[in-house]
Amino acid sequence: MKKYCFGIDIGGTSVKCGFFNSQGTILDKWEIKTRTEDHGIYIIPDVAHSILAKLEEKSIHKDEVIGIGIGVPGPVNDRGELPTGAVNLHWGPKNLAKEVEELTGFITKVGNDANVAALGEMYQGGGKGYKNVILVTLGTGVGGGIIVDGKIVTGSHGAAGEIGHVHVERKETEICNCGNYGCLEQVASATGIVRLAKRALAACETPSILRGRNLSAKAVFDAVKEGDEVAKLIAEDFGDYLGTALSVFAGVVDPEIFVIGGGVSKAGTILIDYIKKYYQRYAFRDCKNTEFSLAKLGNDAGIYGAVKLILDHHQQ
Amino acid sequence: MKKYCFGIDIGGTSVKCGFFNSQGTILDKWEIKTRTEDHGIYIIPDVAHSILAKLEEKSIHKDEVIGIGIGVPGPVNDRGELPTGAVNLHWGPKNLAKEVEELTGFITKVGNDANVAALGEMYQGGGKGYKNVILVTLGTGVGGGIIVDGKIVTGSHGAAGEIGHVHVERKETEICNCGNYGCLEQVASATGIVRLAKRALAACETPSILRGRNLSAKAVFDAVKEGDEVAKLIAEDFGDYLGTALSVFAGVVDPEIFVIGGGVSKAGTILIDYIKKYYQRYAFRDCKNTEFSLAKLGNDAGIYGAVKLILDHHQQ
Repeated sequence: MKKYCFGIDIGGTSVKCGFFNSQGTILDKWEIKTRTEDHGIYIIPDVAHSILAKLEEKSIHKDEVIGIGIGVPGPVNDRGELPTGAVNLHWGPKNLAKEVEELTGFITKVGNDANVAALGEMYQGGGKGYKNVILVTLGTGVGGGIIVDGKIVTGSHGAAGEIGHVHVERKETEICNCGNYGCLEQVASATGIVRLAKRALAACETPSILRGRNLSAKAVFDAVKEGDEVAKLIAEDFGDYLGTALSVFAGVVDPEIFVIGGGVSKAGTILIDYIKKYYQRYAFRDCKNTEFSLAKLGNDAGIYGAVKLILDHHQQ
Repeated sequence: MKKYCFGIDIGGTSVKCGFFNSQGTILDKWEIKTRTEDHGIYIIPDVAHSILAKLEEKSIHKDEVIGIGIGVPGPVNDRGELPTGAVNLHWGPKNLAKEVEELTGFITKVGNDANVAALGEMYQGGGKGYKNVILVTLGTGVGGGIIVDGKIVTGSHGAAGEIGHVHVERKETEICNCGNYGCLEQVASATGIVRLAKRALAACETPSILRGRNLSAKAVFDAVKEGDEVAKLIAEDFGDYLGTALSVFAGVVDPEIFVIGGGVSKAGTILIDYIKKYYQRYAFRDCKNTEFSLAKLGNDAGIYGAVKLILDHHQQ
């Protein structure tokens, strides 16, 4: 009887691996190094080897394994192929699902890492109990994942949920990493919040504990908690950009809940207060009470989402 | 053998009815009056009677009928219920699918009219051949429908595709019908374009054939075609608002195609030129070449989408 499965999250520096039972309970968790040298040709064999070694370690027969779910940093189509490769893994175009299946003998389902993380947060994290979720990841950049009726929305170019690069500021004069101007990522990521902070501090002479300090998103929200007036203005600015953008997303897919994750979300519920203020001001009346929560799985969201991918396939 | 079905589009003044075969070919089409008096209690019996009369007229046995698809102007859940009723039909909360099934004996599937029209345009209109479509309806208001993997996205409050009320203009001082300020509908609907025209004409003294005329979206785009400079500025303004908004929607669901319908779309491909210019400027790189087309089914989109609803259910 098939009762075990693997959730794998391939990142640019390490591969996170999870061994689960068919109820989605994690039984074991480990990491291996991502060897990106030689166009990343060792990554897939390393993953396959690690999976097979884990089965041997636990004396589990191959017949007991449902399959493997994988998240990768790049666009993935429905057949588990990466049509344009994955830059961070030094991969060109690749049929990842097929390669893993051939090396392991297990059915393999693949998704984009941000989308898979969203699925993980829906499955066992901040969006647990919901089937229509938008995950917003506020880290160095801004990422996202769109879940409709319990399933990832991939998009026709694999770009669904690329919410960091929606246009929110017409007056922006600095270029975004993506080549456009005025992207959400430029004002709502950790680095974006630092940009907002620099501008706010330069635009006034109000005393602030942020002056002369090393600026970071954490420093800004710590200062907010201490009642710093300039920090509060920066937080309003951030909340306005992100809350307004989320209200627009609600007009498209109308989720039950927004789950806010990534390093910036460590600021806690105060972050949600600032986002919600503007979200509720601009959202269409029927969506004004959409829920907000903080992500709960941190770096494990990917392995939980990956295992959900293969479990959903198995239960079809 | 079941080989016929009905597509019904219930509007505030008339009910459009279509009789189709199982390949989705329309065999007959007619309208009945929408009797909204007495809280709209006659509407469903009228529809049921009209369907049964059509079968008798054509000497078709009930066993040959697959079922009925219906579009209605209000939020509809997955069970074919209208939890908050339908204002334009004078209806309170209602289980529409069940009522129609009881009166006709046929399986009935129900959707929101704008969403169902989007499904119709995907099925046999401007989005034919695609499965990921955003329909944008530019009429008195701005409506929309989101199709992902061939299915309507309803949203958790039935508000998915309510794209007329996404926030696009911070400086707007007039209130929208929805109670918010700065909605897309205020600048991209037929009435919105007239507002843009009035403001543009008041803001300059440039000669224009629009001056002293009855302003309408049609008059503006006719003037654009005649090379009128002020009309061109108005069209740029419209294209900027709508194209930028669509680029944001692409960051959420990344459709294969945007289908532009409604009265304003009668202006033709010139409309798409203005929208695309700004869409391509602000869309994320992977989505810059998303297709655009004009809607093709006009007022029949609803009956085509309604019949697709019941055919999809039948083929499950």
